[in-house]
Amino acid sequence: MFSGLSAFPLTPMNAKGPDEAAFVCLIERLAEAKVDSIGALGSTGSYAYLNRAERARVARLAVQHAGQVPVMVGIGATSTREVLRLAEDAQLAGASALLLAPVSYQPLTSEEVYELYSSVSHELSVPLCVYDNPRTTHFEFSDELHGRIARLPGVASIKIPGVPAEPEAARERVARLRKLIPSHVSIGISGDPWAATGLNAGCEIWYSVLGGLFPQAALALTRAAQRGDAALAEQLSRQLAPLWAMYNQHGSARVTAAAAELLGYVNAPCLPAPLQALNNTERTTLASLLTKLAL
Amino acid sequence: MFSGLSAFPLTPMNAKGPDEAAFVCLIERLAEAKVDSIGALGSTGSYAYLNRAERARVARLAVQHAGQVPVMVGIGATSTREVLRLAEDAQLAGASALLLAPVSYQPLTSEEVYELYSSVSHELSVPLCVYDNPRTTHFEFSDELHGRIARLPGVASIKIPGVPAEPEAARERVARLRKLIPSHVSIGISGDPWAATGLNAGCEIWYSVLGGLFPQAALALTRAAQRGDAALAEQLSRQLAPLWAMYNQHGSARVTAAAAELLGYVNAPCLPAPLQALNNTERTTLASLLTKLAL
Repeated sequence: MFSGLSAFPLTPMNAKGPDEAAFVCLIERLAEAKVDSIGALGSTGSYAYLNRAERARVARLAVQHAGQVPVMVGIGATSTREVLRLAEDAQLAGASALLLAPVSYQPLTSEEVYELYSSVSHELSVPLCVYDNPRTTHFEFSDELHGRIARLPGVASIKIPGVPAEPEAARERVARLRKLIPSHVSIGISGDPWAATGLNAGCEIWYSVLGGLFPQAALALTRAAQRGDAALAEQLSRQLAPLWAMYNQHGSARVTAAAAELLGYVNAPCLPAPLQALNNTERTTLASLLTKLAL
Repeated sequence: MFSGLSAFPLTPMNAKGPDEAAFVCLIERLAEAKVDSIGALGSTGSYAYLNRAERARVARLAVQHAGQVPVMVGIGATSTREVLRLAEDAQLAGASALLLAPVSYQPLTSEEVYELYSSVSHELSVPLCVYDNPRTTHFEFSDELHGRIARLPGVASIKIPGVPAEPEAARERVARLRKLIPSHVSIGISGDPWAATGLNAGCEIWYSVLGGLFPQAALALTRAAQRGDAALAEQLSRQLAPLWAMYNQHGSARVTAAAAELLGYVNAPCLPAPLQALNNTERTTLASLLTKLAL
Protein backbone atom coordinates (compact mmCIF):
# COMPACT_ATOMS: atom_id res chain seq x y z
CA MET A 1 0.00 0.00 0.00
CA PHE A 2 3.03 2.31 0.03
CA SER A 3 3.00 3.24 -3.64
CA GLY A 4 0.73 5.21 -5.95
CA LEU A 5 -1.81 7.65 -4.57
CA SER A 6 -2.55 7.95 -0.86
CA ALA A 7 -5.50 10.33 -0.48
CA PHE A 8 -5.80 12.43 2.69
CA PRO A 9 -9.37 13.54 3.37
CA LEU A 10 -10.56 16.32 5.66
CA THR A 11 -12.26 15.40 8.91
CA PRO A 12 -15.14 17.86 8.62
CA MET A 13 -16.24 19.29 11.96
CA ASN A 14 -19.54 20.59 13.27
CA ALA A 15 -20.35 22.30 16.58
CA LYS A 16 -20.18 19.00 18.50
CA GLY A 17 -17.13 17.39 16.91
CA PRO A 18 -16.46 15.38 13.75
CA ASP A 19 -19.34 15.48 11.24
CA GLU A 20 -19.55 11.73 10.79
CA ALA A 21 -22.01 11.72 7.87
CA ALA A 22 -19.93 14.17 5.86
CA PHE A 23 -16.72 12.27 6.66
CA VAL A 24 -18.25 8.99 5.50
CA CYS A 25 -19.26 10.61 2.19
CA LEU A 26 -15.68 11.80 1.65
CA ILE A 27 -14.32 8.32 2.37
CA GLU A 28 -16.85 6.65 0.05
CA ARG A 29 -15.85 8.99 -2.80
CA LEU A 30 -12.23 7.91 -2.33
CA ALA A 31 -13.17 4.23 -2.25
CA GLU A 32 -15.20 4.61 -5.46
CA ALA A 33 -12.33 6.44 -7.15
CA LYS A 34 -10.09 3.48 -6.25
CA VAL A 35 -7.22 5.46 -4.77
CA ASP A 36 -4.36 3.21 -3.69
CA SER A 37 -4.74 4.08 -0.01
CA ILE A 38 -6.49 6.52 2.28
CA GLY A 39 -4.67 8.57 4.92
CA ALA A 40 -7.27 9.27 7.60
CA LEU A 41 -6.43 11.73 10.38
CA GLY A 42 -3.50 13.29 8.58
CA SER A 43 -2.78 16.99 8.99
CA THR A 44 -5.61 17.71 6.55
CA GLY A 45 -7.75 15.39 8.64
CA SER A 46 -7.15 17.61 11.70
CA TYR A 47 -5.77 14.82 13.87
CA ALA A 48 -4.05 17.36 16.11
CA TYR A 49 -7.42 18.94 17.02
CA LEU A 50 -9.40 15.83 18.04
CA ASN A 51 -9.41 13.96 21.31
CA ARG A 52 -8.68 10.28 21.68
CA ALA A 53 -12.31 9.11 21.53
CA GLU A 54 -12.98 11.21 18.43
CA ARG A 55 -9.88 9.88 16.72
CA ALA A 56 -10.84 6.26 17.47
CA ARG A 57 -14.33 6.86 16.06
CA VAL A 58 -13.00 8.57 12.89
CA ALA A 59 -10.49 5.76 12.34
CA ARG A 60 -13.26 3.18 12.64
CA LEU A 61 -15.53 5.02 10.19
CA ALA A 62 -12.70 5.37 7.69
CA VAL A 63 -11.96 1.64 7.72
CA GLN A 64 -15.65 0.68 7.62
CA HIS A 65 -16.37 2.81 4.54
CA ALA A 66 -13.14 2.42 2.58
CA GLY A 67 -14.16 -0.88 0.99
CA GLN A 68 -11.06 -2.63 -0.37
CA VAL A 69 -8.86 0.44 -0.03
CA PRO A 70 -6.33 0.15 2.83
CA VAL A 71 -6.49 2.90 5.43
CA MET A 72 -3.52 4.50 7.17
CA VAL A 73 -4.33 6.38 10.38
CA GLY A 74 -2.43 9.29 11.93
CA ILE A 75 -1.34 8.65 15.54
CA GLY A 76 0.75 11.75 16.24
CA ALA A 77 0.62 13.42 19.66
CA THR A 78 3.06 15.30 21.89
CA SER A 79 3.53 12.47 24.39
CA THR A 80 4.76 8.95 23.70
CA ARG A 81 2.15 7.57 26.10
CA GLU A 82 -0.66 9.11 24.07
CA VAL A 83 0.87 7.96 20.77
CA LEU A 84 0.90 4.39 22.07
CA ARG A 85 -2.76 4.64 23.11
CA LEU A 86 -3.70 6.07 19.71
CA ALA A 87 -1.76 3.30 17.98
CA GLU A 88 -3.72 0.70 19.89
CA ASP A 89 -7.02 2.40 19.07
CA ALA A 90 -6.18 2.67 15.38
CA GLN A 91 -5.12 -0.96 15.13
CA LEU A 92 -8.34 -2.06 16.87
CA ALA A 93 -10.23 0.08 14.35
CA GLY A 94 -8.68 -1.96 11.56
CA ALA A 95 -6.02 0.41 10.27
CA SER A 96 -3.70 -1.18 7.70
CA ALA A 97 -0.88 1.22 8.60
CA LEU A 98 -0.10 4.08 10.95
CA LEU A 99 1.34 7.53 10.30
CA LEU A 100 3.47 9.19 12.96
CA ALA A 101 4.81 12.74 13.02
CA PRO A 102 7.07 13.97 15.84
CA VAL A 103 4.49 16.45 17.12
CA SER A 104 6.22 18.90 19.42
CA TYR A 105 5.56 21.50 22.07
CA GLN A 106 9.02 21.74 23.59
CA PRO A 107 11.40 21.63 20.59
CA LEU A 108 12.60 18.03 20.22
CA THR A 109 16.15 16.73 19.91
CA SER A 110 17.08 14.07 17.35
CA GLU A 111 17.63 11.55 20.11
CA GLU A 112 14.15 12.19 21.53
CA VAL A 113 12.60 11.71 18.10
CA TYR A 114 14.55 8.49 17.53
CA GLU A 115 13.41 7.15 20.90
CA LEU A 116 9.81 8.06 20.10
CA TYR A 117 9.87 6.03 16.87
CA SER A 118 11.78 3.23 18.56
CA SER A 119 9.31 2.94 21.45
CA VAL A 120 6.31 2.99 19.13
CA SER A 121 7.62 0.78 16.34
CA HIS A 122 8.31 -2.06 18.78
CA GLU A 123 4.66 -2.09 19.87
CA LEU A 124 2.97 -2.28 16.45
CA SER A 125 1.48 -5.09 14.43
CA VAL A 126 0.95 -2.99 11.28
CA PRO A 127 3.47 -0.97 9.22
CA LEU A 128 4.47 2.56 10.20
CA CYS A 129 4.98 5.58 7.97
CA VAL A 130 7.36 8.28 9.24
CA TYR A 131 5.77 11.69 8.77
CA ASP A 132 8.31 14.45 8.16
CA ASN A 133 6.47 17.78 8.24
CA PRO A 134 8.56 20.59 9.73
CA ARG A 135 5.88 23.21 8.99
CA THR A 136 3.63 21.73 11.67
CA THR A 137 6.02 19.79 13.93
CA HIS A 138 8.91 22.28 13.82
CA PHE A 139 11.27 19.33 13.82
CA GLU A 140 13.82 18.99 11.00
CA PHE A 141 14.86 15.41 10.24
CA SER A 142 18.39 14.91 9.03
CA ASP A 143 18.80 12.23 6.38
CA GLU A 144 20.97 10.34 8.84
CA LEU A 145 18.13 10.27 11.38
CA HIS A 146 15.75 9.07 8.66
CA GLY A 147 18.25 6.30 7.97
CA ARG A 148 18.32 5.21 11.63
CA ILE A 149 14.55 5.32 12.03
CA ALA A 150 13.93 3.52 8.71
CA ARG A 151 15.79 0.49 10.14
CA LEU A 152 13.35 0.13 13.02
CA PRO A 153 10.94 -2.82 12.79
CA GLY A 154 7.78 -2.14 10.79
CA VAL A 155 8.86 1.15 9.26
CA ALA A 156 7.55 0.96 5.69
CA SER A 157 7.60 4.47 4.26
CA ILE A 158 8.81 8.04 4.79
CA LYS A 159 6.54 10.96 3.93
CA ILE A 160 8.89 13.78 2.96
CA PRO A 161 7.77 17.42 2.87
CA GLY A 162 8.85 18.32 -0.66
CA VAL A 163 11.71 18.23 -3.14
CA PRO A 164 13.67 20.95 -4.94
CA ALA A 165 11.76 22.41 -7.91
CA GLU A 166 14.47 21.59 -10.43
CA PRO A 167 14.08 17.95 -11.68
CA GLU A 168 17.78 17.02 -11.47
CA ALA A 169 18.10 18.50 -7.97
CA ALA A 170 14.93 16.62 -6.97
CA ARG A 171 16.38 13.34 -8.28
CA GLU A 172 19.58 13.96 -6.34
CA ARG A 173 17.63 14.72 -3.17
CA VAL A 174 15.59 11.50 -3.41
CA ALA A 175 18.69 9.47 -4.34
CA ARG A 176 20.59 10.84 -1.32
CA LEU A 177 17.83 9.73 1.05
CA ARG A 178 17.37 6.42 -0.79
CA LYS A 179 21.02 5.53 -0.15
CA LEU A 180 20.52 5.84 3.61
CA ILE A 181 17.34 3.77 4.00
CA PRO A 182 16.59 0.08 3.39
CA SER A 183 15.10 -0.80 -0.01
CA HIS A 184 11.83 -2.03 1.52
CA VAL A 185 11.08 1.47 2.84
CA SER A 186 9.32 3.62 0.24
CA ILE A 187 9.80 7.37 -0.10
CA GLY A 188 6.60 9.36 -0.49
CA ILE A 189 6.19 12.94 -1.59
CA SER A 190 4.01 15.29 0.38
CA GLY A 191 3.15 18.91 -0.35
CA ASP A 192 0.96 18.73 -3.47
CA PRO A 193 2.86 21.43 -5.41
CA TRP A 194 5.91 19.14 -5.43
CA ALA A 195 4.01 15.94 -6.25
CA ALA A 196 4.79 15.69 -9.96
CA THR A 197 8.44 16.61 -9.49
CA GLY A 198 8.72 14.23 -6.55
CA LEU A 199 7.13 11.27 -8.33
CA ASN A 200 9.22 11.94 -11.44
CA ALA A 201 12.31 12.06 -9.20
CA GLY A 202 11.71 8.57 -7.81
CA CYS A 203 9.22 8.96 -4.99
CA GLU A 204 6.99 5.88 -5.02
CA ILE A 205 3.89 7.38 -3.47
CA TRP A 206 2.12 10.71 -3.29
CA TYR A 207 0.64 11.50 0.13
CA SER A 208 -1.93 13.84 -1.30
CA VAL A 209 -4.18 16.56 0.09
CA LEU A 210 -5.61 17.16 -3.40
CA GLY A 211 -6.43 13.47 -3.66
CA GLY A 212 -8.53 13.61 -0.51
CA LEU A 213 -11.06 15.89 -2.19
CA PHE A 214 -10.33 15.49 -5.93
CA PRO A 215 -9.19 11.89 -6.31
CA GLN A 216 -9.61 11.77 -10.11
CA ALA A 217 -7.30 14.72 -10.69
CA ALA A 218 -4.71 13.31 -8.30
CA LEU A 219 -4.98 9.84 -9.84
CA ALA A 220 -4.42 11.23 -13.35
CA LEU A 221 -1.21 12.91 -12.24
CA THR A 222 -0.05 9.86 -10.26
CA ARG A 223 -0.74 7.37 -13.05
CA ALA A 224 1.08 9.57 -15.59
CA ALA A 225 4.17 9.61 -13.40
CA GLN A 226 3.89 5.88 -12.67
CA ARG A 227 3.87 4.96 -16.36
CA GLY A 228 6.91 7.19 -16.93
CA ASP A 229 5.11 10.08 -18.62
CA ALA A 230 6.97 12.73 -16.64
CA ALA A 231 5.99 15.49 -19.03
CA LEU A 232 2.27 14.83 -18.60
CA ALA A 233 2.61 14.67 -14.80
CA GLU A 234 4.38 18.05 -14.82
CA GLN A 235 1.78 19.47 -17.20
CA LEU A 236 -1.09 18.34 -14.98
CA SER A 237 0.65 19.92 -12.00
CA ARG A 238 1.26 23.19 -13.90
CA GLN A 239 -2.47 23.42 -14.64
CA LEU A 240 -3.03 23.45 -10.89
CA ALA A 241 -0.45 26.20 -10.25
CA PRO A 242 -3.08 28.77 -9.15
CA LEU A 243 -4.29 26.26 -6.55
CA TRP A 244 -0.74 25.65 -5.37
CA ALA A 245 -0.34 29.44 -5.03
CA MET A 246 -3.36 29.52 -2.72
CA TYR A 247 -1.91 26.61 -0.73
CA ASN A 248 1.31 28.57 -0.29
CA GLN A 249 -0.56 31.63 0.91
CA HIS A 250 -3.10 30.03 3.26
CA GLY A 251 -1.98 26.46 3.89
CA SER A 252 -3.45 23.49 2.02
CA ALA A 253 -5.87 22.59 4.82
CA ARG A 254 -7.59 26.00 4.75
CA VAL A 255 -7.87 25.97 0.95
CA THR A 256 -9.15 22.40 0.85
CA ALA A 257 -11.68 23.10 3.60
CA ALA A 258 -12.97 26.15 1.73
CA ALA A 259 -13.18 24.13 -1.50
CA ALA A 260 -15.15 21.37 0.22
CA GLU A 261 -17.49 23.97 1.69
CA LEU A 262 -17.94 25.77 -1.64
CA LEU A 263 -18.71 22.51 -3.46
CA GLY A 264 -21.17 21.39 -0.80
CA TYR A 265 -19.29 18.30 0.34
CA VAL A 266 -19.28 19.62 3.91
CA ASN A 267 -21.10 22.25 5.94
CA ALA A 268 -19.29 25.49 6.77
CA PRO A 269 -17.32 26.01 8.93
CA CYS A 270 -15.73 22.57 8.66
CA LEU A 271 -12.35 23.32 10.24
CA PRO A 272 -11.84 22.96 13.99
CA ALA A 273 -11.69 26.37 15.71
CA PRO A 274 -9.50 28.35 16.05
CA LEU A 275 -8.62 27.42 12.44
CA GLN A 276 -10.57 29.36 9.86
CA ALA A 277 -10.92 28.56 6.19
CA LEU A 278 -10.72 31.43 3.67
CA ASN A 279 -12.45 34.81 3.99
CA ASN A 280 -15.10 35.93 1.51
CA THR A 281 -12.76 37.61 -0.97
CA GLU A 282 -10.46 34.59 -1.01
CA ARG A 283 -13.48 32.27 -1.39
CA THR A 284 -14.63 34.18 -4.48
CA THR A 285 -11.19 33.70 -6.02
CA LEU A 286 -11.20 30.01 -5.13
CA ALA A 287 -14.73 29.51 -6.48
CA SER A 288 -13.72 30.95 -9.88
CA LEU A 289 -10.62 28.81 -9.88
CA LEU A 290 -12.56 25.63 -9.08
CA THR A 291 -15.01 26.36 -11.90
CA LYS A 292 -12.14 26.89 -14.32
CA LEU A 293 -10.20 23.80 -13.24
CA ALA A 294 -13.30 21.56 -13.19
CA LEU A 295 -11.65 19.05 -10.88
CA MET B 1 -2.13 38.20 41.95
CA PHE B 2 -0.55 39.57 38.78
CA SER B 3 2.52 41.11 40.36
CA GLY B 4 5.64 39.85 42.10
CA LEU B 5 6.76 36.26 41.69
CA SER B 6 4.66 33.63 39.95
CA ALA B 7 6.38 30.26 40.40
CA PHE B 8 5.96 27.59 37.73
CA PRO B 9 6.58 24.07 39.08
CA LEU B 10 7.29 20.92 37.13
CA THR B 11 4.58 18.28 36.88
CA PRO B 12 6.81 15.27 37.60
CA MET B 13 5.81 12.15 35.71
CA ASN B 14 6.14 8.46 36.43
CA ALA B 15 5.35 5.47 34.21
CA LYS B 16 1.60 5.85 34.76
CA GLY B 17 1.22 9.63 34.51
CA PRO B 18 1.69 12.56 36.89
CA ASP B 19 3.53 11.64 40.09
CA GLU B 20 0.99 13.15 42.45
CA ALA B 21 2.99 12.81 45.66
CA ALA B 22 6.06 14.50 44.16
CA PHE B 23 3.90 17.24 42.65
CA VAL B 24 2.24 17.95 45.99
CA CYS B 25 5.68 18.29 47.64
CA LEU B 26 6.73 20.84 45.01
CA ILE B 27 3.52 22.83 45.56
CA GLU B 28 3.90 22.75 49.33
CA ARG B 29 7.46 24.11 49.06
CA LEU B 30 6.13 27.05 47.04
CA ALA B 31 3.32 27.70 49.51
CA GLU B 32 5.80 27.68 52.41
CA ALA B 33 8.11 30.05 50.56
CA LYS B 34 5.15 32.42 50.14
CA VAL B 35 5.54 33.07 46.45
CA ASP B 36 2.95 35.55 45.18
CA SER B 37 1.27 33.02 42.91
CA ILE B 38 1.75 29.54 41.48
CA GLY B 39 1.50 28.76 37.77
CA ALA B 40 0.47 25.11 37.58
CA LEU B 41 0.51 23.37 34.22
CA GLY B 42 2.67 25.92 32.49
CA SER B 43 5.20 24.85 29.88
CA THR B 44 7.48 23.69 32.70
CA GLY B 45 4.46 21.86 34.11
CA SER B 46 4.17 19.85 30.87
CA TYR B 47 0.55 20.85 30.22
CA ALA B 48 0.95 20.02 26.55
CA TYR B 49 1.76 16.37 27.39
CA LEU B 50 -1.14 15.53 29.71
CA ASN B 51 -4.68 14.53 28.85
CA ARG B 52 -7.78 16.31 30.11
CA ALA B 53 -8.35 14.07 33.14
CA GLU B 54 -4.72 14.35 34.21
CA ARG B 55 -4.80 18.13 33.85
CA ALA B 56 -7.99 18.39 35.95
CA ARG B 57 -6.41 16.25 38.65
CA VAL B 58 -3.15 18.25 38.70
CA ALA B 59 -5.08 21.53 38.85
CA ARG B 60 -7.08 20.26 41.80
CA LEU B 61 -3.95 19.09 43.68
CA ALA B 62 -2.25 22.44 43.08
CA VAL B 63 -5.17 24.41 44.53
CA GLN B 64 -5.61 22.02 47.46
CA HIS B 65 -1.96 22.26 48.52
CA ALA B 66 -1.18 25.90 47.74
CA GLY B 67 -2.61 27.22 51.00
CA GLN B 68 -3.24 30.95 50.68
CA VAL B 69 -1.24 31.27 47.47
CA PRO B 70 -3.46 31.82 44.41
CA VAL B 71 -3.03 29.28 41.60
CA MET B 72 -3.10 30.03 37.89
CA VAL B 73 -3.70 27.01 35.64
CA GLY B 74 -2.60 26.54 32.03
CA ILE B 75 -5.47 25.73 29.65
CA GLY B 76 -3.69 25.76 26.29
CA ALA B 77 -4.62 23.23 23.59
CA THR B 78 -4.76 23.20 19.81
CA SER B 79 -8.56 23.33 19.57
CA THR B 80 -10.85 25.99 21.01
CA ARG B 81 -13.31 23.28 22.06
CA GLU B 82 -10.66 21.62 24.22
CA VAL B 83 -9.49 24.95 25.67
CA LEU B 84 -13.06 25.65 26.78
CA ARG B 85 -13.32 22.22 28.43
CA LEU B 86 -9.99 22.74 30.19
CA ALA B 87 -11.09 26.19 31.35
CA GLU B 88 -14.20 24.69 32.88
CA ASP B 89 -12.19 21.95 34.59
CA ALA B 90 -9.64 24.42 35.97
CA GLN B 91 -12.31 26.74 37.32
CA LEU B 92 -14.08 23.81 38.99
CA ALA B 93 -10.72 22.86 40.52
CA GLY B 94 -10.56 26.29 42.14
CA ALA B 95 -8.07 28.08 39.90
CA SER B 96 -7.78 31.80 40.67
CA ALA B 97 -6.69 32.56 37.10
CA LEU B 98 -6.06 30.81 33.80
CA LEU B 99 -3.10 30.93 31.43
CA LEU B 100 -3.67 30.53 27.71
CA ALA B 101 -1.08 30.15 24.95
CA PRO B 102 -2.09 29.92 21.28
CA VAL B 103 -0.89 26.34 20.94
CA SER B 104 -0.60 25.51 17.26
CA TYR B 105 -0.28 22.63 14.85
CA GLN B 106 -1.27 24.38 11.64
CA PRO B 107 0.44 27.79 11.86
CA LEU B 108 -2.14 30.28 13.15
CA THR B 109 -3.14 33.65 11.72
CA SER B 110 -3.56 36.72 13.94
CA GLU B 111 -7.31 36.67 13.35
CA GLU B 112 -7.52 33.03 14.47
CA VAL B 113 -5.59 33.83 17.64
CA TYR B 114 -7.78 36.85 18.37
CA GLU B 115 -10.93 34.74 17.93
CA LEU B 116 -9.50 32.06 20.22
CA TYR B 117 -8.98 34.57 23.04
CA SER B 118 -12.32 36.22 22.33
CA SER B 119 -14.25 32.93 22.45
CA VAL B 120 -12.54 31.84 25.64
CA SER B 121 -12.52 35.14 27.53
CA HIS B 122 -16.27 35.49 27.19
CA GLU B 123 -16.79 32.15 28.96
CA LEU B 124 -14.63 32.72 32.05
CA SER B 125 -15.39 33.73 35.60
CA VAL B 126 -11.71 34.17 36.61
CA PRO B 127 -9.00 36.38 35.09
CA LEU B 128 -7.00 35.28 32.06
CA CYS B 129 -3.28 35.66 31.39
CA VAL B 130 -2.17 35.78 27.74
CA TYR B 131 0.81 33.50 27.25
CA ASP B 132 3.16 34.68 24.50
CA ASN B 133 5.75 31.96 23.91
CA PRO B 134 6.81 31.70 20.27
CA ARG B 135 9.44 29.05 21.06
CA THR B 136 6.71 26.50 21.78
CA THR B 137 3.64 27.88 19.99
CA HIS B 138 5.45 29.18 16.88
CA PHE B 139 3.06 32.12 16.91
CA GLU B 140 4.47 35.66 17.01
CA PHE B 141 2.17 38.21 18.63
CA SER B 142 2.37 41.74 17.27
CA ASP B 143 2.00 44.47 19.91
CA GLU B 144 -1.16 45.56 18.11
CA LEU B 145 -2.66 42.09 18.55
CA HIS B 146 -1.69 42.17 22.24
CA GLY B 147 -3.53 45.49 22.45
CA ARG B 148 -6.70 44.04 20.92
CA ILE B 149 -6.66 40.93 23.08
CA ALA B 150 -5.86 42.89 26.27
CA ARG B 151 -9.18 44.72 25.85
CA LEU B 152 -11.18 41.48 26.01
CA PRO B 153 -13.15 40.90 29.22
CA GLY B 154 -11.17 39.30 32.02
CA VAL B 155 -7.72 39.65 30.48
CA ALA B 156 -5.48 40.59 33.42
CA SER B 157 -1.88 40.03 32.34
CA ILE B 158 0.41 39.29 29.42
CA LYS B 159 3.32 36.90 29.83
CA ILE B 160 5.97 38.10 27.38
CA PRO B 161 8.87 35.90 26.27
CA GLY B 162 11.77 38.24 27.07
CA VAL B 163 13.14 41.72 26.65
CA PRO B 164 16.27 43.12 24.99
CA ALA B 165 19.39 42.64 27.11
CA GLU B 166 20.25 46.37 27.20
CA PRO B 167 18.29 48.11 30.04
CA GLU B 168 17.24 51.17 28.03
CA ALA B 169 16.08 49.01 25.09
CA ALA B 170 14.20 46.81 27.56
CA ARG B 171 12.45 49.86 29.07
CA GLU B 172 11.48 51.04 25.58
CA ARG B 173 10.13 47.60 24.68
CA VAL B 174 7.96 47.41 27.81
CA ALA B 175 6.82 51.04 27.38
CA ARG B 176 5.80 50.38 23.75
CA LEU B 177 3.59 47.46 24.80
CA ARG B 178 2.28 49.35 27.86
CA LYS B 179 0.97 52.15 25.58
CA LEU B 180 -1.18 49.69 23.66
CA ILE B 181 -2.81 47.84 26.56
CA PRO B 182 -5.19 48.99 29.33
CA SER B 183 -3.60 49.99 32.63
CA HIS B 184 -5.33 47.18 34.53
CA VAL B 185 -3.47 44.56 32.46
CA SER B 186 -0.05 43.75 33.90
CA ILE B 187 3.01 42.86 31.86
CA GLY B 188 4.97 39.86 33.08
CA ILE B 189 8.44 38.75 32.11
CA SER B 190 9.08 35.16 31.19
CA GLY B 191 12.35 33.50 30.27
CA ASP B 192 14.34 33.54 33.51
CA PRO B 193 17.55 34.94 31.97
CA TRP B 194 15.63 38.17 31.20
CA ALA B 195 13.83 38.37 34.55
CA ALA B 196 15.98 41.01 36.25
CA THR B 197 16.18 43.19 33.16
CA GLY B 198 12.45 42.79 32.57
CA LEU B 199 11.44 43.61 36.14
CA ASN B 200 13.83 46.58 36.18
CA ALA B 201 12.31 47.72 32.87
CA GLY B 202 8.79 47.90 34.29
CA CYS B 203 7.42 44.37 34.12
CA GLU B 204 5.20 43.88 37.18
CA ILE B 205 5.51 40.12 37.53
CA TRP B 206 8.05 37.39 36.84
CA TYR B 207 6.53 34.19 35.47
CA SER B 208 9.39 32.07 36.71
CA VAL B 209 10.70 28.60 35.98
CA LEU B 210 13.48 29.08 38.54
CA GLY B 211 10.87 30.03 41.15
CA GLY B 212 9.08 26.73 40.66
CA LEU B 213 12.06 24.80 42.04
CA PHE B 214 14.11 27.45 43.86
CA PRO B 215 11.54 29.89 45.23
CA GLN B 216 13.93 31.63 47.67
CA ALA B 217 16.42 32.54 44.97
CA ALA B 218 13.65 33.81 42.70
CA LEU B 219 12.02 35.75 45.54
CA ALA B 220 15.31 37.47 46.42
CA LEU B 221 15.68 38.70 42.85
CA THR B 222 12.02 39.72 42.59
CA ARG B 223 11.96 41.61 45.88
CA ALA B 224 15.17 43.47 44.99
CA ALA B 225 13.60 44.67 41.74
CA GLN B 226 10.29 45.50 43.44
CA ARG B 227 11.98 47.79 45.99
CA GLY B 228 13.87 49.54 43.21
CA ASP B 229 17.26 47.96 43.79
CA ALA B 230 17.91 47.32 40.10
CA ALA B 231 21.61 46.74 40.64
CA LEU B 232 21.06 43.94 43.16
CA ALA B 233 18.47 42.28 40.92
CA GLU B 234 20.94 42.34 38.01
CA GLN B 235 23.71 41.06 40.27
CA LEU B 236 21.59 38.13 41.49
CA SER B 237 20.78 37.29 37.88
CA ARG B 238 24.44 37.48 36.84
CA GLN B 239 25.32 34.96 39.55
CA LEU B 240 22.95 32.56 37.79
CA ALA B 241 24.49 33.13 34.35
CA PRO B 242 25.89 29.56 34.10
CA LEU B 243 22.37 28.25 34.73
CA TRP B 244 20.94 30.56 32.06
CA ALA B 245 23.59 29.25 29.67
CA MET B 246 22.34 25.70 30.29
CA TYR B 247 18.74 26.88 29.75
CA ASN B 248 19.78 28.35 26.40
CA GLN B 249 21.44 25.13 25.36
CA HIS B 250 18.86 22.57 26.50
CA GLY B 251 15.66 24.48 27.29
CA SER B 252 14.69 25.48 30.82
CA ALA B 253 12.33 22.51 31.29
CA ARG B 254 15.08 19.93 30.65
CA VAL B 255 17.53 21.71 32.98
CA THR B 256 14.94 22.16 35.73
CA ALA B 257 13.85 18.53 35.45
CA ALA B 258 17.45 17.36 35.75
CA ALA B 259 18.00 19.65 38.75
CA ALA B 260 14.91 18.32 40.48
CA GLU B 261 16.08 14.76 39.83
CA LEU B 262 19.62 15.48 41.05
CA LEU B 263 18.34 17.09 44.24
CA GLY B 264 15.92 14.25 44.93
CA TYR B 265 12.72 16.28 44.69
CA VAL B 266 11.43 13.91 42.00
CA ASN B 267 12.23 10.46 40.67
CA ALA B 268 14.06 10.16 37.35
CA PRO B 269 12.95 10.32 34.61
CA CYS B 270 10.40 13.01 35.53
CA LEU B 271 9.76 14.47 32.07
CA PRO B 272 7.04 13.03 29.84
CA ALA B 273 8.53 10.95 26.99
CA PRO B 274 9.68 11.68 24.38
CA LEU B 275 11.24 14.58 26.30
CA GLN B 276 14.52 13.68 27.98
CA ALA B 277 16.29 15.66 30.67
CA LEU B 278 20.08 16.03 30.46
CA ASN B 279 22.56 13.26 29.65
CA ASN B 280 25.17 12.10 32.15
CA THR B 281 27.92 14.54 31.15
CA GLU B 282 25.51 17.45 31.28
CA ARG B 283 24.18 16.24 34.63
CA THR B 284 27.66 16.26 36.11
CA THR B 285 28.10 19.87 35.00
CA LEU B 286 24.71 20.80 36.43
CA ALA B 287 25.41 19.02 39.72
CA SER B 288 28.63 21.01 40.22
CA LEU B 289 26.82 24.19 39.33
CA LEU B 290 24.00 23.51 41.79
CA THR B 291 26.52 22.84 44.56
CA LYS B 292 28.31 26.09 43.79
CA LEU B 293 25.13 28.19 43.55
CA ALA B 294 23.60 26.66 46.70
CA LEU B 295 20.10 27.67 45.66
